[in-house]
Amino acid sequence: MAFEKVTREQNYSEWYNNLVHNADLAEHSAVKGCMVIKPNGYAIWEKMQQQLDKMFKETGHSNAYFPLFVPKSLFEKEEKNAEGFAKECAVVTHYRLKADPNKPGSLMADPDSKLTEELVVRPTSEAIIWNTYKNWIQSYRDLPILINQWANVVRWEMRTRLFLRTAEFLWQEGHTAHATKEEAIAETEQMLDVYAEFAETYMAIPVIKGIKTPNERFAGADETYCIEGMMQDGKALQMGTSHFLGQNFAKAFDVKFQSKEGKLDYVWATSWGVSTRLMGALIMVHSDDEGLVIPPKLAHIQVVAIPIYRSEEELNRVLDKLHEIAKELKAMGISVKIDTRDTYKPGYKFAEWEQKGVPIRLALGPRDLDAGTIELARRDTKQKESVSMNGLAERIQGLLDEIQSSLFNKAKDFMNSRMFEVNTWEEFLEVINVKQGFAIAHWDGTGETEEKIKEMTKATIRCIPLNNTLEDGVCVLTGNPSKQRVIFAKSY
Amino acid sequence: MAFEKVTREQNYSEWYNNLVHNADLAEHSAVKGCMVIKPNGYAIWEKMQQQLDKMFKETGHSNAYFPLFVPKSLFEKEEKNAEGFAKECAVVTHYRLKADPNKPGSLMADPDSKLTEELVVRPTSEAIIWNTYKNWIQSYRDLPILINQWANVVRWEMRTRLFLRTAEFLWQEGHTAHATKEEAIAETEQMLDVYAEFAETYMAIPVIKGIKTPNERFAGADETYCIEGMMQDGKALQMGTSHFLGQNFAKAFDVKFQSKEGKLDYVWATSWGVSTRLMGALIMVHSDDEGLVIPPKLAHIQVVAIPIYRSEEELNRVLDKLHEIAKELKAMGISVKIDTRDTYKPGYKFAEWEQKGVPIRLALGPRDLDAGTIELARRDTKQKESVSMNGLAERIQGLLDEIQSSLFNKAKDFMNSRMFEVNTWEEFLEVINVKQGFAIAHWDGTGETEEKIKEMTKATIRCIPLNNTLEDGVCVLTGNPSKQRVIFAKSY
Repeated sequence: MAFEKVTREQNYSEWYNNLVHNADLAEHSAVKGCMVIKPNGYAIWEKMQQQLDKMFKETGHSNAYFPLFVPKSLFEKEEKNAEGFAKECAVVTHYRLKADPNKPGSLMADPDSKLTEELVVRPTSEAIIWNTYKNWIQSYRDLPILINQWANVVRWEMRTRLFLRTAEFLWQEGHTAHATKEEAIAETEQMLDVYAEFAETYMAIPVIKGIKTPNERFAGADETYCIEGMMQDGKALQMGTSHFLGQNFAKAFDVKFQSKEGKLDYVWATSWGVSTRLMGALIMVHSDDEGLVIPPKLAHIQVVAIPIYRSEEELNRVLDKLHEIAKELKAMGISVKIDTRDTYKPGYKFAEWEQKGVPIRLALGPRDLDAGTIELARRDTKQKESVSMNGLAERIQGLLDEIQSSLFNKAKDFMNSRMFEVNTWEEFLEVINVKQGFAIAHWDGTGETEEKIKEMTKATIRCIPLNNTLEDGVCVLTGNPSKQRVIFAKSY
Repeated sequence: MAFEKVTREQNYSEWYNNLVHNADLAEHSAVKGCMVIKPNGYAIWEKMQQQLDKMFKETGHSNAYFPLFVPKSLFEKEEKNAEGFAKECAVVTHYRLKADPNKPGSLMADPDSKLTEELVVRPTSEAIIWNTYKNWIQSYRDLPILINQWANVVRWEMRTRLFLRTAEFLWQEGHTAHATKEEAIAETEQMLDVYAEFAETYMAIPVIKGIKTPNERFAGADETYCIEGMMQDGKALQMGTSHFLGQNFAKAFDVKFQSKEGKLDYVWATSWGVSTRLMGALIMVHSDDEGLVIPPKLAHIQVVAIPIYRSEEELNRVLDKLHEIAKELKAMGISVKIDTRDTYKPGYKFAEWEQKGVPIRLALGPRDLDAGTIELARRDTKQKESVSMNGLAERIQGLLDEIQSSLFNKAKDFMNSRMFEVNTWEEFLEVINVKQGFAIAHWDGTGETEEKIKEMTKATIRCIPLNNTLEDGVCVLTGNPSKQRVIFAKSY
């Protein structure tokens, strides 16, 4: 393990990269832009998947699976969508390799296997799915269709960062079809609420719900809803999006249904997704200079127990007790790992589990055992105390809940301390560049101003908050009239 | 819904295709060779995944994720593996689309985005994974590595059948690394046992465990272990494989470790996988001319309840009772669906759930309600009886267990009735072509004879059973000496 210590303050970006490496979460692969998600990182992603999947099913959705490839002619059909993704598509052109006659031992794409139509590796699945829904929908009785897919997608990226921006990533994409506009909008909003609840309750990350400006909308959507979180460097990270697609895909793929009244109409659509980017958010919001901090609800190991011993006899006595404790905790649904490795010393193990973010650490030696006590340390505050073995399991259960809410509150306080209403361009620049946070500012509503601000400061409009208070004001850049404030920030 | 009725006896293959369609499990997509797995099919696959994943974790494995793409130069490294898969590889050659100047509205692969090295869409992940393991393994302390991946893979197929043979399919692939040959072989055998237990206990399909002949081995393996099941047409289906890879991949990717004694040696490897082909086996072993039959342990809906009513008032009374029953069943961990659709009549619903294979159907009308009884039908035997509402939940719980074991026993009896020891070529032909089953026959051990039998009869050696009894005999085709019998069959 590399113990390169770079603090958040010294270099936030390097701190992040080191943490992902030291906590053994992911690494770059031999394929440009693609990552390997290591077991320690994947276990957190699995916990996220399980919870999200449960919430999707509770809101009436089923899972299904659609092809990885999209024929070019289908991909082209919804023009805006195609245009939005064309520049980052992996394209399959051949279906066979053969021995390269000019390079013994080497293979080459067999020219005879050239496809008559190229296949795009899905950057998102609206096209292939709506081409399929076309055959599933004739009447109002076939609606709504409420489907989710867990899948890998590819968007070619030149400048990648583990979890945050990779050419291939894992995600879920919901694709629903509805008889009315109102129902589709209600679905879009419902799924935004599901994402917000997941972020706040499970990831312990407070989020702002809002809608994107036309400039920042998903290509092919009529409206894009999003949740935005704040990282410890004051930058925003878009944590999930829910799109109201209107009838755009229904029109592109000619998907009509007969209403109860016998009228033919195009179907209304939504799509919504979160991805392994959430891993990046989780890391950046809670972790500290010692390494990863995981909220208990997403920790695959919630408690690690380390035996302290000098002799085999001591080890056995200590282990007996730890197994007893572990059994009790497991019965309460708490996951425990007893670190029995004899190849590493306790100090090394302490540091390793700290780096890996396990919420609670227990350490037990023969002296504790005799005194009926045990050392209990919490990862988030680094508080350490010797506590009685009596009622230990209940204490741990309570502590896990406390850590979960404490992490949320800390993140919430931090976010509140970095959100500023600004009324002048100087204040705007100060928030974005010096205070490093979100600037809540009036904007004249034009894409030109938005673009200009982005060029000048790298800050973008993260969202127009839902249920925004309307108030008259003037645009922070142009001085033109504005009806409401929007949220500007630099972002990942 | 199409109610095309073709029986197994009339046309097994058409029966299968109709069933997959009518039970709403999967369909062909717009992408040649790729399937759409529909919610009803995917829900069964999810149940399989959950159980397998649990068993993998119980045997010490963790999940991780490796890239979808394999650079051609890595793919080439293990020669046999590359040769085995080269003819069915999807090849990515470009990473961008642009507007086609010759066809307005159309896109084309941008020639400027041609990759300097082609990427192969993984047909299996040994190459990319062993290239990664290379960096993870220095010493015996880094071993074993016990990793599994749930992923999609692509093997270009010209002649496809839903679930059984598709260009893209879903699977899990375990990839482990070990310090000794013995440990790697033990792992290979352990995972074969896990697959066999899963097949028999959860899928209710009896299997034969064995090893493949060199001709049928995984490209790059020293030994391929398999489980083989028998379908209702007497053909075999390979349901899972576990490969002892020796040091082949370690040598190809130069993966060495330092032993406890300080010696450098190549690492030993295994890989093992099952795929959505299992859906094909599940369908073909248990289903009947009325449609799908699902073993209770893999049914996402175990009990369907249908209200019978003429008036709103009757419906409400009946529904109240059904909700009460459902609540009780759910508390016991049994999944229930109450079919409240008012757009279909009970008869239609009965037929639909029968086609979809739900193990137990309840029907309740006002007269039953007054009599304190309910109609209970089991899908596998189609037995229907009116039973008392008293103790209904326990009765259903017991019945689900009974159905599970009854399906297994029925499949086991069927398999036993179609396995024949044969000693002459005539007997061999009779079993393969007339009796339609597995021929247990002496074979002279040569690839030539194996190949000749395949050409003459389409039957292949499915496996050499584990713990085979050795007995002297003569090859069923050549008359040359043989030490043991092997299993021949036609197969999917």
